Amino acid sequence: MSQQESTTFRRATIIGPGLLGASIGMVLYEKRIAQQIHAYLRNEKKRQECESSLWCDRAFTELLPAIEDSDLILLCSTVDHIAELLPQVLKSAKQGALITDVGSLKEKICEIAGSSVGIEHGMFIGSHPMTGSEKNGIEHASSRIFEGKQCIVTPTGEKDKNRLDKLVSMWSSIGMNVTTMNPKRHDEIVASISHLPHLVSSSLMNAMSENKEWLKLSGNGFKDSTRIASGNPEMWLQILQGNKKNLLREIDSLKQELENFKTALKSDDCRKLICLLTNAKDLRDALNDI
Amino acid sequence: MSQQESTTFRRATIIGPGLLGASIGMVLYEKRIAQQIHAYLRNEKKRQECESSLWCDRAFTELLPAIEDSDLILLCSTVDHIAELLPQVLKSAKQGALITDVGSLKEKICEIAGSSVGIEHGMFIGSHPMTGSEKNGIEHASSRIFEGKQCIVTPTGEKDKNRLDKLVSMWSSIGMNVTTMNPKRHDEIVASISHLPHLVSSSLMNAMSENKEWLKLSGNGFKDSTRIASGNPEMWLQILQGNKKNLLREIDSLKQELENFKTALKSDDCRKLICLLTNAKDLRDALNDI
Repeated sequence: MSQQESTTFRRATIIGPGLLGASIGMVLYEKRIAQQIHAYLRNEKKRQECESSLWCDRAFTELLPAIEDSDLILLCSTVDHIAELLPQVLKSAKQGALITDVGSLKEKICEIAGSSVGIEHGMFIGSHPMTGSEKNGIEHASSRIFEGKQCIVTPTGEKDKNRLDKLVSMWSSIGMNVTTMNPKRHDEIVASISHLPHLVSSSLMNAMSENKEWLKLSGNGFKDSTRIASGNPEMWLQILQGNKKNLLREIDSLKQELENFKTALKSDDCRKLICLLTNAKDLRDALNDI
Repeated sequence: MSQQESTTFRRATIIGPGLLGASIGMVLYEKRIAQQIHAYLRNEKKRQECESSLWCDRAFTELLPAIEDSDLILLCSTVDHIAELLPQVLKSAKQGALITDVGSLKEKICEIAGSSVGIEHGMFIGSHPMTGSEKNGIEHASSRIFEGKQCIVTPTGEKDKNRLDKLVSMWSSIGMNVTTMNPKRHDEIVASISHLPHLVSSSLMNAMSENKEWLKLSGNGFKDSTRIASGNPEMWLQILQGNKKNLLREIDSLKQELENFKTALKSDDCRKLICLLTNAKDLRDALNDI
């Protein structure tokens, strides 16, 4: 936070605390960024578990009491559920509240906020904290998953400079590197750095379906390359479908790269193969320094 | 090693100690599997460095004195270099010696051994210890890279049961899980669990060439998926070319899996998408238990 005073909130509400939402709850509590933290969950048993967490002051199975009087509301469930709840949250949040989310898609979610009528301008600003794990659920939550990770914040046309500053400051103060861009650009970028890799990882696994017994021979390289294929299928269905247009373009781009290898291999074009391998290595090596 | 007595060697020679060869040298020394360890390197400066390592008794820039009187010879350089040196090693090794290698391809190397005339039957048995790292060089060597990792040993037609037992016992005693199979089968399997993932990882990086600036936003998922693209291009050129036939088939198989995703996405076939994602997740989850 350098010289700046830390942004704090009197009351924050986590909507749908799973791995990411509960981790945010923990870090807001530990760093005293929110004085009081509420949570909203649909399931009564999970509500009770959540309320027994140190970071959670009160947990509700009804939306309105959960967000009442909150000055920071974070929608932390899946993309479809965020889209479903957002209009109600926007309508019911108190004046001056800052509303954000953690969804992997921003264009669709920000459009919903933009087209909601009768709400304050700039009340909602989308966020995409790029952290987490292939694991799910509150039991895997940790306040340490944010440090040094990237967070994309997507303000839209009608900005509220004060709210944007607060939001950026909040993510920064939990250790994230914040970049702002428009929602359309966000979706293009994550199609190539996140959604395509997931689909490729899944495809590598699916290609093994006929030879499952070979998997026991696989080493760390294979395991790392395919780790993300363990992600939640329901969650990824929503993401892949929601970013269909960008993703179809990315699939074609990867197929072209595979074709380049294939052509060079078939024709024993060593110079081309070395170029392809070296270009990939140089790009990947540079990533270690970021 | 359970009840069995450990196999030990009076003198072992590491031919071409890089990351893998020097790691083998270290572990043979630490576990007292070889009483004396020699090394062969072409470069005088590297020879001196190698000889100053604790595990290395003597290092040579000439092959014959390096392997003289050795009862275990390990060829640890690149596939092409192993293929080049093997006939000379077979001809010059002392009677009764056990010769193996660590190359990622087995069919080509075992064929060379099989077609060498005038040598003892079963003198050479191919090995592929599946460990290492995307890093290269003696300075990254470690005796701890073997524990729990897979090693494929590829005896061919004319087996020498005693030598095979010794070789399996040697890899087991440094902590590896050993599987034996014929060289052809080995090359088919590694095409899908190692060589295709490398090529896919490289293709994911190459697909980012036009948008390098997006890479700074990538998270752990992307980084893990592409880690192996940092491998040495010269080494991978030899591997990809040497396993061309199997690899071309694997590329087509992956392209088909990508096409399955594309078709399902285009037609909004949620059921199919969930099937593809769930099949991949189930296969990948099972890998955590191996």
